[in-house]
Amino acid sequence: GKLYVGYNVGVKWFFALLIGIGTGLAAVFINISVENFAGWKFSLTFNIIQKSYVAGFLIYILINLALVFSSVYIITQFAPAAAGSGIPEIKGYLNGIDIPGILLFRTLIGKIFGSIGSVGGGLALGKEGPLVHIGACIASLLGQGGSTKYHLSSRWLQGFKSERDRRDLVTCGCAAGVAAAFRAPVGGVLFALEEVTSWWRSQLMWRVFFTSAIVAVVVRAAMGWCKSGNCGHFGSGGFIIWDISDGQEDYSFEELLPMAVIGIIGGLLGALFNQLTIYITRWRRNYLHKKGNRVKFYCSKDKEYNDLATIFFNTQDDAIRNLFSAKTIHEFSAQSLLTFLVMFYTLAVVTFGTAVPAGQFVPGIMIGSTYGRLVGIFTVNHYKKLNIEEGTYALLGAASFLGGSMRMTVSLCVIMVEITNNLKLLPLIMLVLLISKVCILLVYSIWIDVLQNVLTLFPSQAVGDAFNEGLYEEQARLRGIPLLESRPKYEMRKMTAREACGNQKVLSLPRVVKVADVVSILRSNKHNGFPVIDHTRNGETLVIGLMLRSHLLVLLQSKIDFQHSPLPCDPRGRSQAIRHNFSEFAKPVSSKGISINDIHLSSDDLEMYIDLAPFLNPSPYIVPEDMSLTKVYNIFRQLGLRHIFVVPRASRVIGVITRKDLLIEEEIEDSAITELQSTSV
Amino acid sequence: GKLYVGYNVGVKWFFALLIGIGTGLAAVFINISVENFAGWKFSLTFNIIQKSYVAGFLIYILINLALVFSSVYIITQFAPAAAGSGIPEIKGYLNGIDIPGILLFRTLIGKIFGSIGSVGGGLALGKEGPLVHIGACIASLLGQGGSTKYHLSSRWLQGFKSERDRRDLVTCGCAAGVAAAFRAPVGGVLFALEEVTSWWRSQLMWRVFFTSAIVAVVVRAAMGWCKSGNCGHFGSGGFIIWDISDGQEDYSFEELLPMAVIGIIGGLLGALFNQLTIYITRWRRNYLHKKGNRVKFYCSKDKEYNDLATIFFNTQDDAIRNLFSAKTIHEFSAQSLLTFLVMFYTLAVVTFGTAVPAGQFVPGIMIGSTYGRLVGIFTVNHYKKLNIEEGTYALLGAASFLGGSMRMTVSLCVIMVEITNNLKLLPLIMLVLLISKVCILLVYSIWIDVLQNVLTLFPSQAVGDAFNEGLYEEQARLRGIPLLESRPKYEMRKMTAREACGNQKVLSLPRVVKVADVVSILRSNKHNGFPVIDHTRNGETLVIGLMLRSHLLVLLQSKIDFQHSPLPCDPRGRSQAIRHNFSEFAKPVSSKGISINDIHLSSDDLEMYIDLAPFLNPSPYIVPEDMSLTKVYNIFRQLGLRHIFVVPRASRVIGVITRKDLLIEEEIEDSAITELQSTSV
Repeated sequence: GKLYVGYNVGVKWFFALLIGIGTGLAAVFINISVENFAGWKFSLTFNIIQKSYVAGFLIYILINLALVFSSVYIITQFAPAAAGSGIPEIKGYLNGIDIPGILLFRTLIGKIFGSIGSVGGGLALGKEGPLVHIGACIASLLGQGGSTKYHLSSRWLQGFKSERDRRDLVTCGCAAGVAAAFRAPVGGVLFALEEVTSWWRSQLMWRVFFTSAIVAVVVRAAMGWCKSGNCGHFGSGGFIIWDISDGQEDYSFEELLPMAVIGIIGGLLGALFNQLTIYITRWRRNYLHKKGNRVKFYCSKDKEYNDLATIFFNTQDDAIRNLFSAKTIHEFSAQSLLTFLVMFYTLAVVTFGTAVPAGQFVPGIMIGSTYGRLVGIFTVNHYKKLNIEEGTYALLGAASFLGGSMRMTVSLCVIMVEITNNLKLLPLIMLVLLISKVCILLVYSIWIDVLQNVLTLFPSQAVGDAFNEGLYEEQARLRGIPLLESRPKYEMRKMTAREACGNQKVLSLPRVVKVADVVSILRSNKHNGFPVIDHTRNGETLVIGLMLRSHLLVLLQSKIDFQHSPLPCDPRGRSQAIRHNFSEFAKPVSSKGISINDIHLSSDDLEMYIDLAPFLNPSPYIVPEDMSLTKVYNIFRQLGLRHIFVVPRASRVIGVITRKDLLIEEEIEDSAITELQSTSV
Repeated sequence: GKLYVGYNVGVKWFFALLIGIGTGLAAVFINISVENFAGWKFSLTFNIIQKSYVAGFLIYILINLALVFSSVYIITQFAPAAAGSGIPEIKGYLNGIDIPGILLFRTLIGKIFGSIGSVGGGLALGKEGPLVHIGACIASLLGQGGSTKYHLSSRWLQGFKSERDRRDLVTCGCAAGVAAAFRAPVGGVLFALEEVTSWWRSQLMWRVFFTSAIVAVVVRAAMGWCKSGNCGHFGSGGFIIWDISDGQEDYSFEELLPMAVIGIIGGLLGALFNQLTIYITRWRRNYLHKKGNRVKFYCSKDKEYNDLATIFFNTQDDAIRNLFSAKTIHEFSAQSLLTFLVMFYTLAVVTFGTAVPAGQFVPGIMIGSTYGRLVGIFTVNHYKKLNIEEGTYALLGAASFLGGSMRMTVSLCVIMVEITNNLKLLPLIMLVLLISKVCILLVYSIWIDVLQNVLTLFPSQAVGDAFNEGLYEEQARLRGIPLLESRPKYEMRKMTAREACGNQKVLSLPRVVKVADVVSILRSNKHNGFPVIDHTRNGETLVIGLMLRSHLLVLLQSKIDFQHSPLPCDPRGRSQAIRHNFSEFAKPVSSKGISINDIHLSSDDLEMYIDLAPFLNPSPYIVPEDMSLTKVYNIFRQLGLRHIFVVPRASRVIGVITRKDLLIEEEIEDSAITELQSTSV
């Protein structure tokens, strides 16, 4: 009772602590490695360039190519699931979809080293998305007690067998990833809340919060340790913090116009970015035959032109720091910024979706802050007398582009504020985000016809999707992850639950079922759950529960529940389950599970029977056949279900549960306590 | 179709805009009024005190008494629902409980003027909670198209008849209230998310966010206008912003110990505060016979002692500003702080729950920052060499006390950061909040027995509740608002849905029902919903839907659907509903609705029949009888239901809906669009 609950709560918090520490350390490791690689690269190139310009340039290209290809090698050969940002996959997992391989130990390792390679190699991508995936992997591995494949599992950690507990852990991991990537603990909590989870329970908030706080402490401690020179010559941080707290303090109302312009540009460029990445991804998929995708490795590092070098040659972090910088009016010329914008935008589009761990956050900030600064230059020229900082406009540009492409709201705001350390700009960031959102909506609703006509040159189906959906949803769609959107489709209002099932044949199992039948049913379809039907004494049928495919497979594999007689062996039916360790039924998150083809049964076995009663879920969720599909959708999504049974209208109502029935419990309990107290006095 | 959806979305956003503007203006009005009252009070007292000390003192007391009593008069005579902070009631409303009167126009007016009186009169309470209530009132009134009672309604605004739309609006209103009270737009969104709503849809986030941003802009514009001297002599702002961005930049690890101490003190004092307010409220209720509660008006303004005056005589905002102030080591002596702490704590406990609009936020900050500063003094004395600011400790103290009493996490963090404008302290605030939370949990779980033995002197039932629940939950409990907690009770795991219904008699209605039967059923019980049962041709019964009491009352009142024959009049059954304007069935949120006793029916009427088919909800939510009560609880709370039917196990399964069935829709739609496009080319 109480003790078990207490133990359970304790384990959960302990895991949250471990996730925080693990993710924090992973982030520190990646940052230090990237910093050190960048440092070595720079010093080597610098030494050689003294002697020969061409040799230096070649060495620079070679190092970068080596880094990038090592990353590609790791991903393609070792951990294919670690490609991309990983956020769409995690989103899918938390939305209720089991994507094989995304939470494996090897994915974790691949992600860490792949990120180091690709970011260290100077590609137009960031390490933030991958860190979210890393946090989720750590959480999931902890939740299943380590990696079984690599014999790193530990028995006493295997506390979490329920899907919900695991999802909670993964949610904590996501928050930890964001908190570590941006050093933005509150932003992490909000990101997990807004962008990743499909449903949310307020109990979880505390734990997510705790994890984020732990990450903040770990990262800070590690950076303090690095400051004393223990992290190699160049590893002095590398976390993105662009402190612009000395920047613009206030804004005047005339400035709202250029800021609105930034919002509009952000909305358009962001939506266009999403659209272009769709085309690119489809093109790759269609013409490159799903292989390699090594198109982009020729473009990213052969520029060493003019004064653009301050942007191009720095690490992305430093480039952004320059773009955001206050008190530096006319540091950049409009031409340089425009050139950079066009080139980097193209690069970012092309780099997107390649076979390396790739975050879209930092590239987004780069693009956004470039055009923001451009608008800032014009604003400063136009309103000469005002105290305007170009850096402020760069920040707003970054916010608008991220808003336009990722569509996060509150978490984006908080992250932007946390990384720039300037709270005064918060209302402006909010406004710019809103304008970019409204702009997208307007374009989507008014110009959709025009766009569709213009863009019929391109594959048509994708038009508009990109305008309506965020980057992550789209990536998920492209990867075939069936995310349930938060809003049911309008068409569902007129449909009933029965219509949604269509004329599908329901495959149900009897309570005591022949093994041969089970095998043939499992072979004949890919359903994951089957209703179990029993007969009452007066011959009526009765739905007694839901049997999962995975549990059937476990039963078939273990064979210990096979029986000779076709009769229910035990009327109470519960004692049998003891033969099984409960954990047998819990599929490890990171493995693909067993398949029916892996199970070998003798012909004797096939003639035996199984009584399913002890193993089924006796109270699956049900909806009446004529419930509106919108309602069904909401139940499904809000409760995170995998199956709902559609049943005929009931013949009678046994009772009506109202709020009071759910509260009466409490009073009973209270009065029980009161009684106990009064007797103990 | 699309056009209607577009119109609907447009109206929603327009309402969000109006809520933002309205709440912002209300906040500005209250602030300017309070500031001006405080100014007049001060200048008058100052003038008189030049001549006679006693007269000045008396005048000061009289003005305060006049202000406070005017507030009490407004509340008791005009708008009783406006007493207290209003947050528990709003929480209850959004949790699904209809509390009469809380969202009336008169409550709004009472809240605004009551707040001005009580805060202007110098009571130990704040205007933040009331502002949340004000925002919610504005939202609700807008949602029902104005106040019908005061003939301020407008037809074209009556777009929102569904409960959900209204709740969404009220959620926006809450966020607007917090955003206006603290000038913390992001904090407002999070507060609405974390503390107020029971369920949350991500579509809502954007609108809440928009509302908050509008509030920020309105408040800023108003303050800009005030700076040019248009708001009376003293009305130069009054919004709580305690800018401590010049404060401590960094922390050293030695400081974590005193900060942990602050967290512990905060947890204990906060929980104790909750506990004490419970006793006070019960005592008042038992001994003061629910009237007046004017106990406290003798204590709040007769101190004009020593150097404490800098805290006591200032407005609370200025006092806090002093307590938080950096670079002012040893401004306060430990004795003064201790005296103030004890007195203000007592005052705050006593003032709590009286008949004036009362916010607990600012008093909480006052108490917390006092002991925080106390700890800060000791820390500064102990670690002499470090760069430590007492103001930082005051801030952490405030966070810890609020965490201990209100239990908000993320929103509290963000609000504290937004009002103090110092992001660097965020991890520390998080840590302190967590420690205070853990401290409460430990005390609750380990010492609960001891506490129960010691505290049996007091009414026993409340012990522990206070340790486990936040201030608002508790207030709600004390006011008899049956909030469903986010976590089902442990005992529910072993119960089934059928057991929760107990042996209650289900009162069901036939499809065509005699008016006399309806009247007697409605008189005999207080149920709000009734199952409707019909017979099929082969004599079986069939549950065809849920009929709400309120809809039955509308039918009885209008009488136009009465018919003479006991037969269903129309097999399709839908044409009848046209006789009714849909809005007739939508009960205004702010009124108490009609009662069965208000309806007068002749004996002829009683002999007639009603066909309920067109008016019932044809697909109510159902659960099978043996579903675990925990599951039922989650369905109930997550979907925000009011009724669930418990039905027998189904005899067969018509279909199984899985994720794929809910996604197929989309593909159908997509292919339809594709077809359209290909034909239009």
